[in-house]
Amino acid sequence: MSQQPVYQPQEVKRREDKSNRARMLISCPDRAGIVAAVSQFLYEQGANIVQSDQYTMDPEGGMFFMRIEFDLQDLELRLSTLQEDFGRVADRFSMRWSIFRAARRKRVAIFVSKEDHALLELLWQWQAGDLDAEISMVISNHQDMRELVESFGITYHYIPVTPDTKAEAERQQRELTSGKVDLIVLARYMQIIPPKFIEQFHNRIINIHHSFLPAFVGGKPYQQAYDRGVKLIGATAHYVTEELDGGPIIEQDIQRVSHRDNVNELKRMGRHIERIVLARAVKWHIEDRLLVFQNKTVAFV
Amino acid sequence: MSQQPVYQPQEVKRREDKSNRARMLISCPDRAGIVAAVSQFLYEQGANIVQSDQYTMDPEGGMFFMRIEFDLQDLELRLSTLQEDFGRVADRFSMRWSIFRAARRKRVAIFVSKEDHALLELLWQWQAGDLDAEISMVISNHQDMRELVESFGITYHYIPVTPDTKAEAERQQRELTSGKVDLIVLARYMQIIPPKFIEQFHNRIINIHHSFLPAFVGGKPYQQAYDRGVKLIGATAHYVTEELDGGPIIEQDIQRVSHRDNVNELKRMGRHIERIVLARAVKWHIEDRLLVFQNKTVAFV
Amino acid sequence: MSQQPVYQPQEVKRREDKSNRARMLISCPDRAGIVAAVSQFLYEQGANIVQSDQYTMDPEGGMFFMRIEFDLQDLELRLSTLQEDFGRVADRFSMRWSIFRAARRKRVAIFVSKEDHALLELLWQWQAGDLDAEISMVISNHQDMRELVESFGITYHYIPVTPDTKAEAERQQRELTSGKVDLIVLARYMQIIPPKFIEQFHNRIINIHHSFLPAFVGGKPYQQAYDRGVKLIGATAHYVTEELDGGPIIEQDIQRVSHRDNVNELKRMGRHIERIVLARAVKWHIEDRLLVFQNKTVAFV
Amino acid sequence: MSQQPVYQPQEVKRREDKSNRARMLISCPDRAGIVAAVSQFLYEQGANIVQSDQYTMDPEGGMFFMRIEFDLQDLELRLSTLQEDFGRVADRFSMRWSIFRAARRKRVAIFVSKEDHALLELLWQWQAGDLDAEISMVISNHQDMRELVESFGITYHYIPVTPDTKAEAERQQRELTSGKVDLIVLARYMQIIPPKFIEQFHNRIINIHHSFLPAFVGGKPYQQAYDRGVKLIGATAHYVTEELDGGPIIEQDIQRVSHRDNVNELKRMGRHIERIVLARAVKWHIEDRLLVFQNKTVAFV
Repeated sequence: MSQQPVYQPQEVKRREDKSNRARMLISCPDRAGIVAAVSQFLYEQGANIVQSDQYTMDPEGGMFFMRIEFDLQDLELRLSTLQEDFGRVADRFSMRWSIFRAARRKRVAIFVSKEDHALLELLWQWQAGDLDAEISMVISNHQDMRELVESFGITYHYIPVTPDTKAEAERQQRELTSGKVDLIVLARYMQIIPPKFIEQFHNRIINIHHSFLPAFVGGKPYQQAYDRGVKLIGATAHYVTEELDGGPIIEQDIQRVSHRDNVNELKRMGRHIERIVLARAVKWHIEDRLLVFQNKTVAFV
Repeated sequence: MSQQPVYQPQEVKRREDKSNRARMLISCPDRAGIVAAVSQFLYEQGANIVQSDQYTMDPEGGMFFMRIEFDLQDLELRLSTLQEDFGRVADRFSMRWSIFRAARRKRVAIFVSKEDHALLELLWQWQAGDLDAEISMVISNHQDMRELVESFGITYHYIPVTPDTKAEAERQQRELTSGKVDLIVLARYMQIIPPKFIEQFHNRIINIHHSFLPAFVGGKPYQQAYDRGVKLIGATAHYVTEELDGGPIIEQDIQRVSHRDNVNELKRMGRHIERIVLARAVKWHIEDRLLVFQNKTVAFV
Repeated sequence: MSQQPVYQPQEVKRREDKSNRARMLISCPDRAGIVAAVSQFLYEQGANIVQSDQYTMDPEGGMFFMRIEFDLQDLELRLSTLQEDFGRVADRFSMRWSIFRAARRKRVAIFVSKEDHALLELLWQWQAGDLDAEISMVISNHQDMRELVESFGITYHYIPVTPDTKAEAERQQRELTSGKVDLIVLARYMQIIPPKFIEQFHNRIINIHHSFLPAFVGGKPYQQAYDRGVKLIGATAHYVTEELDGGPIIEQDIQRVSHRDNVNELKRMGRHIERIVLARAVKWHIEDRLLVFQNKTVAFV
Repeated sequence: MSQQPVYQPQEVKRREDKSNRARMLISCPDRAGIVAAVSQFLYEQGANIVQSDQYTMDPEGGMFFMRIEFDLQDLELRLSTLQEDFGRVADRFSMRWSIFRAARRKRVAIFVSKEDHALLELLWQWQAGDLDAEISMVISNHQDMRELVESFGITYHYIPVTPDTKAEAERQQRELTSGKVDLIVLARYMQIIPPKFIEQFHNRIINIHHSFLPAFVGGKPYQQAYDRGVKLIGATAHYVTEELDGGPIIEQDIQRVSHRDNVNELKRMGRHIERIVLARAVKWHIEDRLLVFQNKTVAFV
């Protein structure tokens, strides 16, 4: 078939060279000496710290969180040794930690149903070079967006979900994604994600909910908002947990509305907030800016 | 007692002369000819329409709402005749309507407990001439703010509320306000308003709730917001109905927060939103900009 | 050539039926009786007023502006008679006025250079049914966006502009647009529009300037903003006049930035504001919500 | 005279104990090892880092900025030794640096003319415990606010400024403030600050300008904004330099306006932005969150 892409993948705008850029995420119980130990370690390796953020929940015995961005010559070659060596520092402080190479783009699968605005925003920001990820595939329970997605050079998987095909659909989805993508983005995907799937992609599934959570959990949030007569509508990007719309909130934003705006108008205005909020959350995740602790996010943005 | 006021009432800044300014609020089932009839009536009276807003819920058989601001020579003298004459127009369209003289400032009672920020903002805006009302009294279940309030030349009533004195407190509050004030503002007043009081001041009691309703109904909303890990906090001004935090929403606003902000910090930031949101709602009410229909407000602002 | 459109024009989502909807814009010196005369006229025609906004610059002898949206049976058939009849009302008040049929979508030409974000937002909102216009053509001094634009089923005219071809380019542009489009949108078009062109499309050319005007007039506004160390960046949509970046402002918005954001980051963030602000301005224009008076806009939004 | 204070200074709400809290501000050319050296030094002293922010202008040879908040036992006693010892670390990296004790509140002089809103906001936030400073005095070229200020227990100096008394006024102002206050806040003070005064309080005089700088430099910015027809108005807090309204910007914010808002309405709305923006800037300064470099601020907020 002679598919005619609009934007060739090779047209994706060139990004800054980041081959030696690494990002380190750390969480551990707070105590004196952590920053000294980490920064001393990096200094001895010859790394140059480009950015560093930290947060202590409570100066008295709380948790400590840290994100460090650094440059290190020959990073790719030296990474495994670096990780091994850092393990010794980490053990002293009972750290949970990861080091990511910025050049190793996260692989993303986008799930979508029939509404295209959230998907389009992600594709456009990706194409503009603002989302530094690899969009591996789009999975949908409808055929509607195939041409659009393929025109960006991205593979489109149509996996219908009906009561009968549910189990089979899940099997296919997991086969396509297990070990093959790093992040799943639900860009207005209107099906429930099964618990096993959620468990496997723990804190790696981002959903956009079309309300200012925890207001208007569940279905038809714009109708709910209209019925309540709120003066602001919102959208919430969150990690998916088993509790519906109850996972750790990553980002929220709102827009002013008035009595003049009917439900359709709220939906129209809401689309703009949804796409912006989701894109921000995805950007922060793929740039390793998010840590999750006790159903909340620490967002170093 | 030689109380020493800081700001003399007579120092309140002079406002624009509004002796001939009137405001008309109308609601009725929509049908053709309403605007023509109303504007024709006003024209024949010699009135000059200064501002006019209207809203139709649904072009097919919905409700119609209108606010007209107009100037009419010798308004005070002519008002009762005007109202009588307009009654005939109103009857044709089954209108609910009121005409207010702008110069007849609404009399306001402010209820407050121990937190001063919302009260202070109201006093401040009033003193600056931004709130064109008469602040008749402040009623509090504590003595804390007596000196402050009296320094503005405003009467302060201390009415303690305990389980034992509850009935007596309500009796005193009603005696002070019945027929003597037009609006009651709960500026962080931490006691329940009894149903009879609410009934008597139907859609004339404004409360500030320290969350983005309907999220975090009830007590300790900042603690709730912190526990949920939201990225925005809000405040909501609403008319008080028997349903706790369930009345018609007048105004809402929000402020961005982050994981760094603990409950105290949320409270601190929240105070700024609360006072702004409450002051806006009060301003709109005293300028006759609000209509209530089916637990929602139409706000001509 | 077998060009493969991604979104067929026929896929554009269906809009509400507006075949009998009209919009009337009026400006005239203020005096008593205008609203009565206009609403009486419409009532006698059998029109139903759906929305009405008015604004008086100064109750004492200022200008009066009005926008009325109404439904009238058989509008298309009756429009010319309606206009003729209204002429008599208009003459009494020295009105400047227009009546637009909502169903007669405005024809829009979009001018673009190499940056695609503002164009894409317009196409996207148009395709989603949010911009109720006919996008007649895209004109560019570069070939870059041909495929993208044609994939939406829109004609793309490549008109290079060099010092030598300038006159010829202008001739072509005017030939394509004169009498054929109602609005020209400069969606980051980096060439000067010649005075004659501006005169012909008086108050019908909308430009997006990438700063919060009047700050940072002229070239490289993000560099200017960075150098000045501002804490907010903005974008401004305005009608084009002969004075560079000096025409009537239609809409502005801003985004918070920090010392961390370098010029490239400002540009990236700015693109999001630019596209939103431009799309709002275009939407308001095509919905006949804008009146211009003395280099300012009255925006009934 | 029996002046009757409304809020006794001792009523100022209790703040968190910060007797051992210090804040360190550092700027130097960027190179590897800075963070390691500083954090190692603090660790060896037994300090616990509570918060740390850093910023590198350009990973290749740019400037490096850092703010560290830490707790150290017996801080007051040990401070001078600590500073001496840190001097050796600082020299290795050519640092400009300071260490501030949080418990040593900055002494502030507020200059004001006739408009009270910015002053009142500062006094209220101070009184509420949000501004952790010592307000040493208010200096005004008018008598208007004496009673108000004295009711907070703050000394009020009336220093009239006329062409004849200018030199004498400056002499008095400097005598009152030299070595006696750490920060001067111009809370709508409508007189020019002389160059020598600015030099003496280099980056320690904060002004609030009532526009979104660099738009509308100079006098009557709201009139300028109205004349230009902007859709947002703003306010800017900045350090005062010899160039009028040209100093390093600390904070800005805006508010949406419409064609309906006349100059007086812009002023009214603007007052709310001015007071909020100024209070934020003052808060950041007194919490040692601001560094100035090349006429820009690095704001660790």
